[in-house]
Amino acid sequence: MISNFEFSNPVKISFGKGSIARLSALVPEKSSVLIIYGGGSIKKNGIYDQVLEALKGFHISEFSGIEANPHYETCMKAVELVKEKHINFLLAVGGGSVIDATKFIAVSSFFEGDPWNILAKGSSVSKALPLGVVLTLPATGSEMNERAVISRVSTKQKLNFSTPVVFPKFSILDPEVTYSLPLRQVANGVVDSFIHVVEQYLTYPVNAKVQDAFAEGLMKVIHDEGLKVLTNPHDYDIRANLMWAATNALNVWIGQGVPQDWSSHRMGYPLTAQFGLDHAQTLAVLLPGVMTYMFKDKQIKLAQMGEVVFHITEGREEERAHQTIVATEAFFKQMGLKTRLSEYGITSDDLDALTTPIDKLGWKLGEHHNIDSSTAKEIMMLRI
Amino acid sequence: MISNFEFSNPVKISFGKGSIARLSALVPEKSSVLIIYGGGSIKKNGIYDQVLEALKGFHISEFSGIEANPHYETCMKAVELVKEKHINFLLAVGGGSVIDATKFIAVSSFFEGDPWNILAKGSSVSKALPLGVVLTLPATGSEMNERAVISRVSTKQKLNFSTPVVFPKFSILDPEVTYSLPLRQVANGVVDSFIHVVEQYLTYPVNAKVQDAFAEGLMKVIHDEGLKVLTNPHDYDIRANLMWAATNALNVWIGQGVPQDWSSHRMGYPLTAQFGLDHAQTLAVLLPGVMTYMFKDKQIKLAQMGEVVFHITEGREEERAHQTIVATEAFFKQMGLKTRLSEYGITSDDLDALTTPIDKLGWKLGEHHNIDSSTAKEIMMLRI
Repeated sequence: MISNFEFSNPVKISFGKGSIARLSALVPEKSSVLIIYGGGSIKKNGIYDQVLEALKGFHISEFSGIEANPHYETCMKAVELVKEKHINFLLAVGGGSVIDATKFIAVSSFFEGDPWNILAKGSSVSKALPLGVVLTLPATGSEMNERAVISRVSTKQKLNFSTPVVFPKFSILDPEVTYSLPLRQVANGVVDSFIHVVEQYLTYPVNAKVQDAFAEGLMKVIHDEGLKVLTNPHDYDIRANLMWAATNALNVWIGQGVPQDWSSHRMGYPLTAQFGLDHAQTLAVLLPGVMTYMFKDKQIKLAQMGEVVFHITEGREEERAHQTIVATEAFFKQMGLKTRLSEYGITSDDLDALTTPIDKLGWKLGEHHNIDSSTAKEIMMLRI
Repeated sequence: MISNFEFSNPVKISFGKGSIARLSALVPEKSSVLIIYGGGSIKKNGIYDQVLEALKGFHISEFSGIEANPHYETCMKAVELVKEKHINFLLAVGGGSVIDATKFIAVSSFFEGDPWNILAKGSSVSKALPLGVVLTLPATGSEMNERAVISRVSTKQKLNFSTPVVFPKFSILDPEVTYSLPLRQVANGVVDSFIHVVEQYLTYPVNAKVQDAFAEGLMKVIHDEGLKVLTNPHDYDIRANLMWAATNALNVWIGQGVPQDWSSHRMGYPLTAQFGLDHAQTLAVLLPGVMTYMFKDKQIKLAQMGEVVFHITEGREEERAHQTIVATEAFFKQMGLKTRLSEYGITSDDLDALTTPIDKLGWKLGEHHNIDSSTAKEIMMLRI
């Protein structure tokens, strides 16, 4: 049975070629805008110039240097700037890291006390600076959801928070801005968004036909177009389909009313915090482990997924489910990602350190809440 | 190529068993609420009692008697009541007709001049009373969009309008309230929502993979569950899937960036206004005509639709496309709907009167804007 749910998603999407010019209409008049971005690639590929051109007449400040897996420490510096410059609108120009950082800056600018508690203690927030997005890397879905993940360098922690007040007011999705992305980032985005769908789908059947159909459609699109983009990086349609699919993969619409399993995501956080793996790299390694270890729980949906995404139609359900795991790992390899911990120099000696954070946070992961630190260790052992 | 688009949909959905009780939290505190409903079936099936129970403590007024294909004249009476009772929140309890009427009442309550101009002249509106919905009949998608269709008895006209200010603040979707619906209404809802998807899908391919996948998924769900509901009217999952599919069929999400063809809808309006056919009945008659007359334009998508929805995989594309038309008409018949004008006593002598409104309104229908009144007449001739 589909569970009860209550949800809305008010983000305005402005999609298509040249849509950065829409900023002039989408940012509230007379705003004092802080443009937040990463390492400066937007200055090389022309996006920065397009943004400034569209925002002529607004009062503009800038904050650059948001890292991949954005740092709490960096966000706190931006909060100081927000207060100093009396900023009243934040514009994230970047991918998931920049958007997530902007969300955290948005709530921290009003939070009384240490904003780290929003992440570490789940302190509630009721107010945030309004924010908009110019998306440069389709992957995380952060442009159309109310979530963010932040890392703290000093303690090697990576934590998430979620609140409706950080829904972007708008997100601009121009597929052409993705032409210049490095291949590694494109491949990471494909794998990340594919796995977002898997995490809202690959549990047990509850007869949620619409949610299943949408999830299966997205997995198929991301798989098919993901393989094509490697050899056709300047094809508008492929880029447009991947961009729109990635947004729909985590605007939290396909997951309403169905069981979910975010264990690969959560188990992956320490791999990033302790070993510096890209977020998508952690997922490509761990998801096949979760699929294998939890095989019995996921067998029906694995077979269903295999038929739609990989055209696996021969054999008994169990065999088809196994073939789906093989095909999934092969897909990640085709996209150029590694799928074993050992390929990153991680050995069984590292697993205690990688799984103790799960204990500390008291997490019981998976759709049946039965993955604790010792189960996580066994899953990781399968991926050495 | 996918066209540029800009869109948001802020409607909060509260879905599931018992969700009418959520009214007490969803209606703004201290509101003076006008409950708007139809012929009184909600008093027989217990929905009315659930609504009143949930709204204890609010100041409540009522307006009943909204017709199928809601009348302008009736809406104007409700507007008088709104002003007299100082209503500041409208609650539609019903299906598409009640919701559409409520939207028109919401804008007419603030409109200066004759509100008919909103429909007849497309007069712009910038303000509406806030409204919420308790959905009793899944069909039109009105619970999650910004559109409404209103009929004027005195002139036998049926016209639509659309404005973001009439997006419901929330819509409550409890599948259990649909158990008691008469079979004819259930079947109408299935056909109506199926055709909503067709109208956003069955044009020419633009390589919009996500939009296509979502549309195909919805058509398949509505087709499969629609046939099941006839013999399993009290199956929660079937009702839940149909309800959620119908909302997604016209929350205008699947149609972003793709060509659309609403000609069956528009050509059907005079059939309702002049001959009293249910909205879905008009569609079941006309859609096969549009498919046949516009065959060459729609052949590729017809074949694509046939494969996913009806498992038509044998033969050349043209043959598969033809089989899809046959299967679509057969589906409507299986749902108990007539598919010929003559079955309603309409003859070729009536076609001039049925198509002149298209001329009067200057409509050029279809994805290529090439269906005028004479083409419409030829299409209808195919359906005698």
